[in-house]
Amino acid sequence: MSRYYRCFSFALPVFFLSWATSVTAQQASTSVLNADASDPNRLGWMQGFPPAPGKVIGQPDSNYFSFPKMRWTVCHFRELLPTKQVSRGLGAPALFSYALDDAINDVTFTPIDGSEPMSWEASLNENYTDGLLILHQGQVVYETYSGCLAETGQHGAMSVTKSMTGLLGEILVAEGTLDERALVGDILPELADSAFANATVKQLLEMTTGLAFSEDYSDPNAEIWAYNAAASPLPKPDDYTGPRTYYEYLATVQPEGEHGQVFGYKTINTDVLGWVIARTTGESVSSLLSSRLWQRIGAEQDAYFTVDSIGTPFAGGGLSAGLRDMARVGQLVLSEGVINGERLFPAAAVERIRQGGDRQAFAAAGYRYLPGGSYRGMWWSLHNEHNAFAARGVHGQTIYIDPTAEMVIVRFASHPVAGNAANDPTSLPAYQAVAEYLLDKAETD
Amino acid sequence: MSRYYRCFSFALPVFFLSWATSVTAQQASTSVLNADASDPNRLGWMQGFPPAPGKVIGQPDSNYFSFPKMRWTVCHFRELLPTKQVSRGLGAPALFSYALDDAINDVTFTPIDGSEPMSWEASLNENYTDGLLILHQGQVVYETYSGCLAETGQHGAMSVTKSMTGLLGEILVAEGTLDERALVGDILPELADSAFANATVKQLLEMTTGLAFSEDYSDPNAEIWAYNAAASPLPKPDDYTGPRTYYEYLATVQPEGEHGQVFGYKTINTDVLGWVIARTTGESVSSLLSSRLWQRIGAEQDAYFTVDSIGTPFAGGGLSAGLRDMARVGQLVLSEGVINGERLFPAAAVERIRQGGDRQAFAAAGYRYLPGGSYRGMWWSLHNEHNAFAARGVHGQTIYIDPTAEMVIVRFASHPVAGNAANDPTSLPAYQAVAEYLLDKAETD
Repeated sequence: MSRYYRCFSFALPVFFLSWATSVTAQQASTSVLNADASDPNRLGWMQGFPPAPGKVIGQPDSNYFSFPKMRWTVCHFRELLPTKQVSRGLGAPALFSYALDDAINDVTFTPIDGSEPMSWEASLNENYTDGLLILHQGQVVYETYSGCLAETGQHGAMSVTKSMTGLLGEILVAEGTLDERALVGDILPELADSAFANATVKQLLEMTTGLAFSEDYSDPNAEIWAYNAAASPLPKPDDYTGPRTYYEYLATVQPEGEHGQVFGYKTINTDVLGWVIARTTGESVSSLLSSRLWQRIGAEQDAYFTVDSIGTPFAGGGLSAGLRDMARVGQLVLSEGVINGERLFPAAAVERIRQGGDRQAFAAAGYRYLPGGSYRGMWWSLHNEHNAFAARGVHGQTIYIDPTAEMVIVRFASHPVAGNAANDPTSLPAYQAVAEYLLDKAETD
Repeated sequence: MSRYYRCFSFALPVFFLSWATSVTAQQASTSVLNADASDPNRLGWMQGFPPAPGKVIGQPDSNYFSFPKMRWTVCHFRELLPTKQVSRGLGAPALFSYALDDAINDVTFTPIDGSEPMSWEASLNENYTDGLLILHQGQVVYETYSGCLAETGQHGAMSVTKSMTGLLGEILVAEGTLDERALVGDILPELADSAFANATVKQLLEMTTGLAFSEDYSDPNAEIWAYNAAASPLPKPDDYTGPRTYYEYLATVQPEGEHGQVFGYKTINTDVLGWVIARTTGESVSSLLSSRLWQRIGAEQDAYFTVDSIGTPFAGGGLSAGLRDMARVGQLVLSEGVINGERLFPAAAVERIRQGGDRQAFAAAGYRYLPGGSYRGMWWSLHNEHNAFAARGVHGQTIYIDPTAEMVIVRFASHPVAGNAANDPTSLPAYQAVAEYLLDKAETD
């Protein structure tokens, strides 16, 4: 195992690496650098020609995703890994209209589990925010960049990628191209001997499959290691005999428990959904995301996916994109498929996401900060009083959609702790407070 | 050697791999597939999810740049290698105006060394053309795509990259930021013990340095092997003790002969020039190409560079770009720094390129199809009756500029033979014939 780990460390799928990082970060939480002190520009990573010794992030550094280096890496995955383009096409971008409101900085909220109020502005650094944009009624009311990110540039979306893949899946279901009751094994005969064979597409979309798949990095026998080795785009060692691609790995996944009972957040569901989408449409997830969304939302920048050894896009976590383009997707979802006056897909696709998934199955998973929530189409439904729902990435990335306040918040972040439990207490109530501020403002206007 | 070769085969700098390929292709030239038969879509590379066995180009395939796979690979370097973005910025592209003229297909010419006339249209397949665009007086009069390329998508520019780096160098010289008489060792103290130390910037720009650097792949002791190993973005073997980056390799290059005497086409000159540019401006070649050109020519697409293990862009051959964007650069050069009504740099930068370099030093190198030519600013001057000059890539890529005919021809190609001697006989006279056709037409109008 140690040899494989060494060989593949350059290219571990970043979603998973982030969880490994969390152990260290949490253990060291009392001494972890704050947002200003860990700013990658301030720390001088990769500045100069060549960068100074000790300031290089690249080979043979196997810890490029450890904090604080990670705060540089989240904007530079393509410089470390092979990638596949999500083309925006060749047309002119559709620009947002702006109605910036600095008063949002002064909106205050009380963090979950906290007693002292915090300002919106203070929450940005608290959450190691690299970029944040708020749309209200389709207009940009707030936009900021920090750390490694600028308006030009892409940031790793991590598990927000899942919500893009899931949205494509829901679009195909709503259009009747994909039957959510179909068995995965009927669509992908290659998975006949895997746990996925008798799972339905709906169970993929809600992540209620029963899979023997552990992401526990402290366990050397956890399936995550074999998955990482298979997913790496690097040459395998000569004596490697395991699966060599996402496709090959997914065919080996064994069942554990019954499908349809309990929500289990396992990235391989999204990789299988990506495969289902590719087989159904004849287009890879990266290609379909381009043709169905990126080329039609007026995107300003191409996006990209990291890939495995044969160019398969990492449907479960490999997307990097510009902040404004993610906001365009958020607005498209808020508007149930309409953007710039054009309908791109049936409203039913978003309705299913917004209604959410099996709340009982979700409750069994015990998410402390998402009580009463659910998961559908690879989006998280809060089922709060505003019916908010969100795409969520492991270091605080989000597309947070509040239909009641007609608000979209898009955030890229590089929080040292991998897991939204670390930033939810100063994020979710902040989003709600801004939503209420914007609702009040709309009523006053 | 064999071990290193195996380890680095995934990521050999593509410029050099192309030369290795040439041996095979030339040896097999009697049986090599023609353009239609080797079309990557027809051959089915990388189609399907997963692609069929035998149709995969990726790991552990170390021959991704062998013909005919190469005809797919030239449009997909980023899926195989880490890359660095050349951002076009966020604005709307500046679209070309069109005055398409199908009659160009019927223009005929006599190939060098040939006796039978050939039509322009026939020359496209003869040269394994993937994309070709002709600008006349700033308007698109001809545009075609084939093989792996479409209007959306990037193609490897190979040594046309050198001309982009060289153009940046000439811009800095023309602006007074860079002194062409300066010694490289004074700008880059890291090269004090290398052959470059007492070479001038001008000698870099004209490639008249005297360097002990062989690109002979049949010689296991040729310097090209150590260069390839150093340039690879992949993890080095544990027992590797050689240079790990472009920077480290360039510092080891030893002298052979005197500087300033003979033209010697050696890619490392361009990598040093890229380093000189980065040290002088504080921007990498990829960043400067974006800020000085790509963000200001109205580009439709981002471009990108392949990189070494610490993200250094391959200034001598790593650029991939869209066909139309290369045409924009061509028009900018034809117009001596003006595009879309805006001057981007002093006309002197192009004047130096157009005037060419030391013709005597060039003659000594014995280029059969470029008699009387020269090399300056990393562009090739034909010194023909039209004063044409060109950027040239090893598989037939070109930006061919004919100031007399007010014509720019941009071609991407994937000729099986690495070396322009294979396609010059059916390219250079074809370009001249179209130039004369357009001159006649302009006079008639």
